[in-house]
Amino acid sequence: MTERLDVAGLQRRLARFAAARDWEQYHTPKNLAAALSVEASELVEIFQWLTPEQSQQVMRDPDTAHRVADEVADVLAYLLQFCEVLGIDALAALAAKIERNEERFPAPEGP
Amino acid sequence: MTERLDVAGLQRRLARFAAARDWEQYHTPKNLAAALSVEASELVEIFQWLTPEQSQQVMRDPDTAHRVADEVADVLAYLLQFCEVLGIDALAALAAKIERNEERFPAPEGP
Amino acid sequence: MTERLDVAGLQRRLARFAAARDWEQYHTPKNLAAALSVEASELVEIFQWLTPEQSQQVMRDPDTAHRVADEVADVLAYLLQFCEVLGIDALAALAAKIERNEERFPAPEGP
Amino acid sequence: MTERLDVAGLQRRLARFAAARDWEQYHTPKNLAAALSVEASELVEIFQWLTPEQSQQVMRDPDTAHRVADEVADVLAYLLQFCEVLGIDALAALAAKIERNEERFPAPEGP
Repeated sequence: MTERLDVAGLQRRLARFAAARDWEQYHTPKNLAAALSVEASELVEIFQWLTPEQSQQVMRDPDTAHRVADEVADVLAYLLQFCEVLGIDALAALAAKIERNEERFPAPEGP
Repeated sequence: MTERLDVAGLQRRLARFAAARDWEQYHTPKNLAAALSVEASELVEIFQWLTPEQSQQVMRDPDTAHRVADEVADVLAYLLQFCEVLGIDALAALAAKIERNEERFPAPEGP
Repeated sequence: MTERLDVAGLQRRLARFAAARDWEQYHTPKNLAAALSVEASELVEIFQWLTPEQSQQVMRDPDTAHRVADEVADVLAYLLQFCEVLGIDALAALAAKIERNEERFPAPEGP
Repeated sequence: MTERLDVAGLQRRLARFAAARDWEQYHTPKNLAAALSVEASELVEIFQWLTPEQSQQVMRDPDTAHRVADEVADVLAYLLQFCEVLGIDALAALAAKIERNEERFPAPEGP
């Protein structure tokens, strides 16, 4: 697979993956939003009993590091599939949001 | 801002945004995972009482469309900030996951 | 309203409340589970940037205390409505779970 | 165990259970809110790909019925533990909320 490792390319691969398995019938926006939140909670679960300090060390243990990266992949996968079915450009939405936030929360002046 | 609209560029902008406001103290992996799940739930909230069919029409109403795109931006923002503090490459994690899934769930043969 | 303040009584009041407003059509188990998770996330949101120590002080501020109690009420309301539509006895389910956990995680012997 | 099957009794059993295992150190309000939301998401996960109609039939399969009741127990357990550490009366909070909602959403007049 020589497709470039970018958001648009990954989004297309996920769409083809679902279509080839006839999973599109399950991929309503409502279901994909729920699946996204379930995966986000699986990420929270890794951290739920950790102190703030312990949470900063999770990548030191290879098994936990793998589990964290795997949940990140699941969250991103459902986010992109959600965007695919609704025709949303996730990167453009984020860029627009950052611009609004830069106006809404002006950075303090430097010294 | 002429920075390219790609994941790495947006991730850097988010990091600078947080640093300029001294928000990094709040951005433990544990807190960012929680914030990500909160934003994912705000996306679910838009859909919670809709039928599957209604959920497919949410982009027809401009206000709802804006709200959906805004929540997508929030989810992606916290996901990228989470990846930033833990040194995770979200796109590489997703590509690896897709490859594992292609082996785990082989597509049915065509006719 | 002289009905006793117990789980069964509150569950009946919630059922009558929904029936009187013709909201039962929205109260599928799937939708109620989603609504429950959305309310649980609104509780998380109150705590997301707090340190563990700050999180223990949230009831000192009357506004935050009210907000926390209100989210607790929302979580419990959706949990009881979910149990109502599926015929689940939440207290019996919890008692059974505690008994299983007492076997699964034996308490350490005292001195 | 002859303790009555009511919310207050179950809340005390959960408190003793945690104390006997020295788990109270993990039970900050922040952590318990996160754990509650994780369990709520495990309930959502059972329903995430089901149609509304399928979601109404989940108790027909004994294994799924057990899984659903088990997640209900987990949600209620963390909700009561959260209330325990913050001194919140969950039933009183819900009763107050129902009363506010009865004023906020008046039922339509009967014929």
